[in-house]
Amino acid sequence: MVKDYITTEDFTKKELMDIVKISLLIKENIKAGYPLNVLYHKTLGMIFEQPSTRTRVSFETAMTQLGGHAQYLAPGQIQLGKHESMKDTAIVLSRLVDVLMARVQKHETVSELAKYATVPVLNGMSDYNHPTQEMGDIITIFEHMPQGKTIKDLKVVFVGDATQVCASLMMMITKMGGHFVHYGPKEFQLRGKYLEIAKENCAISGGSFLITDDEEEALKDADFIYTDVWYGLYESEMPKEQRMSIFYPKYQVNMDMIKKASNHVKFLHCLPATRGEEVTDEVMDDPNVSICFDQAENRLTAMRGLLVYFMGKMEETAKICRENLDKN
Amino acid sequence: MVKDYITTEDFTKKELMDIVKISLLIKENIKAGYPLNVLYHKTLGMIFEQPSTRTRVSFETAMTQLGGHAQYLAPGQIQLGKHESMKDTAIVLSRLVDVLMARVQKHETVSELAKYATVPVLNGMSDYNHPTQEMGDIITIFEHMPQGKTIKDLKVVFVGDATQVCASLMMMITKMGGHFVHYGPKEFQLRGKYLEIAKENCAISGGSFLITDDEEEALKDADFIYTDVWYGLYESEMPKEQRMSIFYPKYQVNMDMIKKASNHVKFLHCLPATRGEEVTDEVMDDPNVSICFDQAENRLTAMRGLLVYFMGKMEETAKICRENLDKN
Amino acid sequence: MVKDYITTEDFTKKELMDIVKISLLIKENIKAGYPLNVLYHKTLGMIFEQPSTRTRVSFETAMTQLGGHAQYLAPGQIQLGKHESMKDTAIVLSRLVDVLMARVQKHETVSELAKYATVPVLNGMSDYNHPTQEMGDIITIFEHMPQGKTIKDLKVVFVGDATQVCASLMMMITKMGGHFVHYGPKEFQLRGKYLEIAKENCAISGGSFLITDDEEEALKDADFIYTDVWYGLYESEMPKEQRMSIFYPKYQVNMDMIKKASNHVKFLHCLPATRGEEVTDEVMDDPNVSICFDQAENRLTAMRGLLVYFMGKMEETAKICRENLDKN
Repeated sequence: MVKDYITTEDFTKKELMDIVKISLLIKENIKAGYPLNVLYHKTLGMIFEQPSTRTRVSFETAMTQLGGHAQYLAPGQIQLGKHESMKDTAIVLSRLVDVLMARVQKHETVSELAKYATVPVLNGMSDYNHPTQEMGDIITIFEHMPQGKTIKDLKVVFVGDATQVCASLMMMITKMGGHFVHYGPKEFQLRGKYLEIAKENCAISGGSFLITDDEEEALKDADFIYTDVWYGLYESEMPKEQRMSIFYPKYQVNMDMIKKASNHVKFLHCLPATRGEEVTDEVMDDPNVSICFDQAENRLTAMRGLLVYFMGKMEETAKICRENLDKN
Repeated sequence: MVKDYITTEDFTKKELMDIVKISLLIKENIKAGYPLNVLYHKTLGMIFEQPSTRTRVSFETAMTQLGGHAQYLAPGQIQLGKHESMKDTAIVLSRLVDVLMARVQKHETVSELAKYATVPVLNGMSDYNHPTQEMGDIITIFEHMPQGKTIKDLKVVFVGDATQVCASLMMMITKMGGHFVHYGPKEFQLRGKYLEIAKENCAISGGSFLITDDEEEALKDADFIYTDVWYGLYESEMPKEQRMSIFYPKYQVNMDMIKKASNHVKFLHCLPATRGEEVTDEVMDDPNVSICFDQAENRLTAMRGLLVYFMGKMEETAKICRENLDKN
Repeated sequence: MVKDYITTEDFTKKELMDIVKISLLIKENIKAGYPLNVLYHKTLGMIFEQPSTRTRVSFETAMTQLGGHAQYLAPGQIQLGKHESMKDTAIVLSRLVDVLMARVQKHETVSELAKYATVPVLNGMSDYNHPTQEMGDIITIFEHMPQGKTIKDLKVVFVGDATQVCASLMMMITKMGGHFVHYGPKEFQLRGKYLEIAKENCAISGGSFLITDDEEEALKDADFIYTDVWYGLYESEMPKEQRMSIFYPKYQVNMDMIKKASNHVKFLHCLPATRGEEVTDEVMDDPNVSICFDQAENRLTAMRGLLVYFMGKMEETAKICRENLDKN
């Protein structure tokens, strides 16, 4: 079994589906009001090199709901690879906590941490990917599967800039055998290593992918439209005017765009959203279209599943949940 | 039932008394050594726009004692209404935690958060009021009720600047039917909307209020004397010299002032105190007069009661506490 | 019983051995998979005037493993003796939490906190000593006792600068009756009050101590070699060149130095280490010599024992652990 959750590329479709299933089962169990203690008295160490609300809150709530506790190590508190070697930090923290998550500036940081740590390490976002978001997203897609369709029939379109969230969505959809589209301006499209991954995944899964700036081709029959902010929230931010000149109005998810997709299309966004830029209020607040808040809740759903899976508690947890739910 | 605890003005005297009673019952239960798990595995999200020790520590201890966990979101970590709309933050956090508290710069912020959040929101202090302090204060007053008196016979005097704590005390005492006095210099007295509230409350409760800079009128027969620092701890601080020239020596709570009140008068302070400014060591350290440390402990007493009440667990908790205490 | 853990000098050898024993017993119990709840729903308030990873993480994990919760009050959050008197802070926090720890700039701060607090206060490092480290170190030494030896036969050599960790090691080893050596350059040797303590301890325990810059005398037959960084990590840091010119190469723990000690010598370091300065990779990574990661884990071992001891739960905990372990 792979010790760490650094990229979904390290896992088979079957393994990822196991995580989806245990996540959904735990969600059902918690919603039904049955407390779990499968990580009783366990500690998650959360290392943040960048600020984060959603990831931090989701992980911390997840640990509480599983009977354990999450320690928040804020940006600046642990400086990975600065005061001491990464190796030493990884070994020491592995002696003091039961599982680690890290949100890092550079992907190598979380990979190296995982290499030296003897406890599981979960990637809470790097400059390369965002696999906990990815897991929450696929869970949301399964929950909102159009009637009569399976993952292999789905067309999932990411609109806008090739962010880590875009890359992660591509990895998950192509791994699962669905049809992924990145619809974005030429200089802001997925490229290089990401395209190789997409090809490899599709070869195995039977999925397909398309990178395009052609609106009609992109949106036709889309089951899900996903977008993200136009440029990172925290650093080397492109000024608003420049962002707008590149992406607006063509790549804004508004009702006109929604109408060009399938008539059951759903809207996804990793949030936070800059309303009026990449998405309009009308789309985001439409209860028939927008599922981005269900998706936000599924960050938590995914975190619980991931923690249980990587702590080696999947089967035990599934058994407990099923017994609880059978009582109903 | 009102979902949020934004201002005590949203509640009837009876409802506030319910919270007082459940707070005191939980206190008795915890002091007797019976653990509670009425908020088992529940998460409180604590949003701070300003630093705070007492409020944060009290809430965090309260959640632990009730079987749950409090997440500390420090100033700067969540910027309400900045990176995303308040509405989106409120909806998302409501999916990830079970109850929220916020200490905010502007009262509108916590009101708006409450409006959009689907979970209960507790006001941990704004520029308008400080209702968790208010609840701890009235609990302390009930615990130290002069023999033979009821709340309707009490004269409670706030000395000094019209801080949020002064305003909150006024709201609670007039709501309860007591006699409230603000004794402070003319330009630093409660005014405007606060006076309207005082009037409305007294009309219903039979209480009274007086705003004055007349020492004798203010202090005569006072049952409680309450003060706060002369000007806010954190921002746009008035220089010490200016503060002193306005409030000193007239509004300093010292033994001379104490002697002008009833002979059973008790001293309250929301703390932290600037000893030697608004209160002397002699008063603060007098075990027959000062109850400000009991009052500090009742921040925790109030937090537990408020959490239980707004999480809809009042009756269940009362039942458990009574059963525990009956064992003795 | 002494209420606080400020310096090991306040305790007899027997009392310190009690803490060692309960720490080891809890460690065995936890490793065997038996959860403990001896501090169920209790709160530890952790006050940090300086940043710290290891101390904070260890204490926080310890509280979780004992059924309680630790509140992290980061540098700047509580300013001891600034906004309010130390006395008021101590009294108020004692009403809101069950036990306190403080990492402070000046030793007087933690002493004063302990004086006024009505709950136990644990010293998480000051400019004078580092007694939680000290406890973890002696536990590690007991776990790696050379065959056929007792503490009274041990020679423990601290190499380098007279840091708080050096001072604490001296206090513990001389208290226990062992032989302590500080091997360091003349201007960076333990002096003054520390030497008086060493003398007093040895008079009672039968131990001995030596302060020297003579390599052969220092290292001959050493059972343990311990080092720390050359100059503090955080403030008034001496530039690297200056540090190196004072300590390098004479005081670097490398394989040449290791060979001059006993052939079973073990290497200790409080970490973080600056590899290539005070210790070489070769020593630190040698599984036959280096026990510094076991030592890091024993920070947690010590914290659990200290918390249980000072919370008055030693006997109850010992009973529970023994019953659990007897099941095996």
